Amino acid sequence: MTLLNHNASRLTQLFPIVGWLKSYSRHEFNSDLFAGIITAILLVPQGIAYAILAGLPPQLGLYASILPPIIYALFGTSRTLSVGPASIAAIMIAGALTAPEVSALGNPVQSALILSAESGIIMLLMALLHMGGLVNFISHPVLTGFTSGASLLIIGNQLPQLFGLKAPSCGIDAICYGQYLSGIAPVTLAIGLTALGLLIFFGKPLIHALKKIGMQPTLITAISKCGPLLAIMLTTLAVSYLDLTAQHHVAVVGQVPAGLPALIFDFSPIEKWYVLLPYSAFITLIAYVESVAIAKVTANLRAEKIAPNQELIALGIANLSAAISGGMPVAGGFSRTMVNFAAGARTQMAMLIAAAILALAVIFFSPWFENIPKAALAAIILAAITPLVKLKDIALTWRYDRGDGIAELATLLGVLVYGIEEGITLGIILTLVSHLRKTSQPHIAVVGRIPGTEHYRNIKRHNVETWLHLLLLRVDECITFANINYIEDFIKSELRQQPDIKHIVLIFTSVSDIDTTALEVLENLNHTLQAAQITLHISEAKGPVLDKLEKTDFIRQLQPGKAFFHTADAVKELSKAGAIH
Amino acid sequence: MTLLNHNASRLTQLFPIVGWLKSYSRHEFNSDLFAGIITAILLVPQGIAYAILAGLPPQLGLYASILPPIIYALFGTSRTLSVGPASIAAIMIAGALTAPEVSALGNPVQSALILSAESGIIMLLMALLHMGGLVNFISHPVLTGFTSGASLLIIGNQLPQLFGLKAPSCGIDAICYGQYLSGIAPVTLAIGLTALGLLIFFGKPLIHALKKIGMQPTLITAISKCGPLLAIMLTTLAVSYLDLTAQHHVAVVGQVPAGLPALIFDFSPIEKWYVLLPYSAFITLIAYVESVAIAKVTANLRAEKIAPNQELIALGIANLSAAISGGMPVAGGFSRTMVNFAAGARTQMAMLIAAAILALAVIFFSPWFENIPKAALAAIILAAITPLVKLKDIALTWRYDRGDGIAELATLLGVLVYGIEEGITLGIILTLVSHLRKTSQPHIAVVGRIPGTEHYRNIKRHNVETWLHLLLLRVDECITFANINYIEDFIKSELRQQPDIKHIVLIFTSVSDIDTTALEVLENLNHTLQAAQITLHISEAKGPVLDKLEKTDFIRQLQPGKAFFHTADAVKELSKAGAIH
Repeated sequence: MTLLNHNASRLTQLFPIVGWLKSYSRHEFNSDLFAGIITAILLVPQGIAYAILAGLPPQLGLYASILPPIIYALFGTSRTLSVGPASIAAIMIAGALTAPEVSALGNPVQSALILSAESGIIMLLMALLHMGGLVNFISHPVLTGFTSGASLLIIGNQLPQLFGLKAPSCGIDAICYGQYLSGIAPVTLAIGLTALGLLIFFGKPLIHALKKIGMQPTLITAISKCGPLLAIMLTTLAVSYLDLTAQHHVAVVGQVPAGLPALIFDFSPIEKWYVLLPYSAFITLIAYVESVAIAKVTANLRAEKIAPNQELIALGIANLSAAISGGMPVAGGFSRTMVNFAAGARTQMAMLIAAAILALAVIFFSPWFENIPKAALAAIILAAITPLVKLKDIALTWRYDRGDGIAELATLLGVLVYGIEEGITLGIILTLVSHLRKTSQPHIAVVGRIPGTEHYRNIKRHNVETWLHLLLLRVDECITFANINYIEDFIKSELRQQPDIKHIVLIFTSVSDIDTTALEVLENLNHTLQAAQITLHISEAKGPVLDKLEKTDFIRQLQPGKAFFHTADAVKELSKAGAIH
Repeated sequence: MTLLNHNASRLTQLFPIVGWLKSYSRHEFNSDLFAGIITAILLVPQGIAYAILAGLPPQLGLYASILPPIIYALFGTSRTLSVGPASIAAIMIAGALTAPEVSALGNPVQSALILSAESGIIMLLMALLHMGGLVNFISHPVLTGFTSGASLLIIGNQLPQLFGLKAPSCGIDAICYGQYLSGIAPVTLAIGLTALGLLIFFGKPLIHALKKIGMQPTLITAISKCGPLLAIMLTTLAVSYLDLTAQHHVAVVGQVPAGLPALIFDFSPIEKWYVLLPYSAFITLIAYVESVAIAKVTANLRAEKIAPNQELIALGIANLSAAISGGMPVAGGFSRTMVNFAAGARTQMAMLIAAAILALAVIFFSPWFENIPKAALAAIILAAITPLVKLKDIALTWRYDRGDGIAELATLLGVLVYGIEEGITLGIILTLVSHLRKTSQPHIAVVGRIPGTEHYRNIKRHNVETWLHLLLLRVDECITFANINYIEDFIKSELRQQPDIKHIVLIFTSVSDIDTTALEVLENLNHTLQAAQITLHISEAKGPVLDKLEKTDFIRQLQPGKAFFHTADAVKELSKAGAIH
């Protein structure tokens, strides 16, 4: 069972590539070669398109498609994730580069490289702090709402390209798109629709037709995945031979420098690092969470395992390599990964092959990219992004869990109305708060002694001895800011019901932590109780909890209350002193 | 015991004033009268000062000190909270009004009134949704870090006033204050330092001296609290008689319209409501959380009780009344509440008296306010705000709980470096994430049957029967996005240790909710298990959980797995079918 195999050697842990390379077969290579070529066919236009979407020169997307996937192949735990420029990261980069405080500093290419470097460093720091588990703290509804919202923003951003309208100048939000609805350029629109039509036709309709005539599945895959290449080639040829740029102002990619990028090691000025930090933080978060989510989809289909912390390392180094090789920030791309998987990729060898093809394309074919019409690229972005808009999912979530549904809808609307960062922040806060509300009522048991023993059990479930002046309470969870008020209210309500209580013992058997807020509330509660002639004690506090409390004044403040080792000790001592009956 | 008294009649719940008015005594009135006068003496300069701090004409602070405290006296549950303009809300208002998208719409007074109205409406909506408990979800370290950071910002903002430098023009952040260090105005500085010196002298030194000569405590309080009034009067007289405004350009308050405000019911344009919404949301959050925190401090000292949801109603209506009477947003003020409490306020009657004095001051004395020097107001703000900077607290928190310490420091630095809203957001997210990390490892027990019974217990604690092909797991908490990955890992690791398992039964006795994320992960897990010939079952699911699951495809997907009513049924049926041994 693949699921349960677990090769834990250090080398394989750091370089997962070693794991599969040891037993790599000719058969797997054939599959990977095919998938690598197919993915490369998509990677070229996507690299250019996402760079333009981010507001950057096309080569930043191409360069991000060479070194970063090679690095990821060495360090990443997913066998099919296609790392490179990604649509949602691209729109976030566009947002960062057009923010007033960033654009005021000029040189967007430099800013983009600093974003790559900063994201890489943040990911490596997170890996160092073992924060890979953070990915678990963004709930699926928030992620889906966010992805849908960001995708809608991208669609809104790309439609003007498809219609030949001017690129948005008023920022990335839902409101400003209205002004573009006048002045459609018919030739550009024809190009865009031709490309879009080809992409749609090469999807289900063609596959269905080829299956009907009994073609071999591998061949069907090969042919159907050539839609993007064909769309780009046909429209580029049309632009070149009909001179559409000069005669009909069809927007094209423009010059792409030939050859591999020179390595860059100068990332000054430091001021930009400061201004870009909040943007890199959000790009990092989303790049990481989306990459792991995509990686998990394909890993689940083949019962492979994704190691979140190792992914942080892999994506972190990949982003650093993007910065050094002149590329925009990278992440796992949804549509490319799906194409890679569907084309039969068995391992990251497929992406190594794709990266090699990209490198050759950049060296030998970059003059050919000049006349690629932006409208055709817009069609490719639209085809890649549309499956990410899952509005139906909101209805399903809403029906299943109202709180999750609200969070999903709020995230989507937040992204559309207030922007990417604001939307995801809102979503995260809503989920966390709703989660806290669910978990902020810990189990608290009033306990008594099982006669003749030293066992103390819940008075609701067992026949136990209790004392008129003594309240024994067992709190069954960590005591934190989220539940201390519930605990305080519980104690006060018990005291209202039992007005003769003079001593309270809090039993900490299950308490493995007391945070700062809880400690302060307990201190205040103790003062209030002392004013009412009630003494607070604690018992059975574990070592780490006691160590923490001893750093503070709390136990001294309890006096005459005490910290007992066992609950039985408390009962014995209080009985002896005649304090309880 | 006051703590435990609980008058739950509907009328008293809605109008807590009824509770204390019924048994209101002559003695209490004397205390309240004294405290009301003392608080009013502080309220006049603070009202003006906080309005100017917010970048608004002085009357917006004065008007906010009349109707809102009267409304709060009717609805609020704190007996000593002084509701009115507050320093931290003021700096947040300043931030909102200077934000480019807000200032572009012009008319800051109108924007301030919309902020009041919007904050009031948000609070009432929160009350309607019973979100008063939200206050518990901002931990003390985050609140302290935030308050310290915001107070430092205010100090940075006020020092130029004290030194007679121009008001900051480059926004509210730590970086831009450097440029003011040139060009100090000596006369203004003299006024500022005189006022500050008086305020400091009227604090501990004077109290100490008066105690030494054996003066009556009430008289000491009365005299010592007159510092602000004296400082304002002396410096204003100096400005008026020495004509310092004309001769030395000493900045003064300027004209304040005489008489009570006209009521306002027009809060157009709607566009401003949209642009101001994020700012009102943060102001609401902070105004509410800080008010309740301050109210609790004094309530704890007298063993009174604060009802968080009723506070939302009281502060919500108070803010609406501020909007209607031309006042800036209001909250509980820390220094004023402390003065009110120390001066012996027993009930909100003190604030009713203070509001009446404010109204008289506005009607009869507003011409006198014109020559109050801003430097003296800066001194009053500095005296009020300095105790809120608790840098030592960070060190204490850091020592006690590292996670809380990091959150506190990050919030403080976030506020200073990136701004108020960003800082508090960062702090909240850090605390919630650290809380989730602590609580994301639920207790999971592998259980077996106690021989001869139908009881299933933890195999680690009891002598129980188990089966080679069956894994019985009891999850002891709600299953959510925060812990589902831990649960999944737990199951996979059990399967690695027991490779003969063919059936898994998840026992849901303690599971009262399964959220959307958890459901998706369980669905994927089930697919992976099915591929490995392992069947997943569930048992003992409670009604609401089963209802939720039945809205989805999950139970059908389990097939041949089943949802059993009792764990015993599962064991019986699987044994009969010969599936387990």
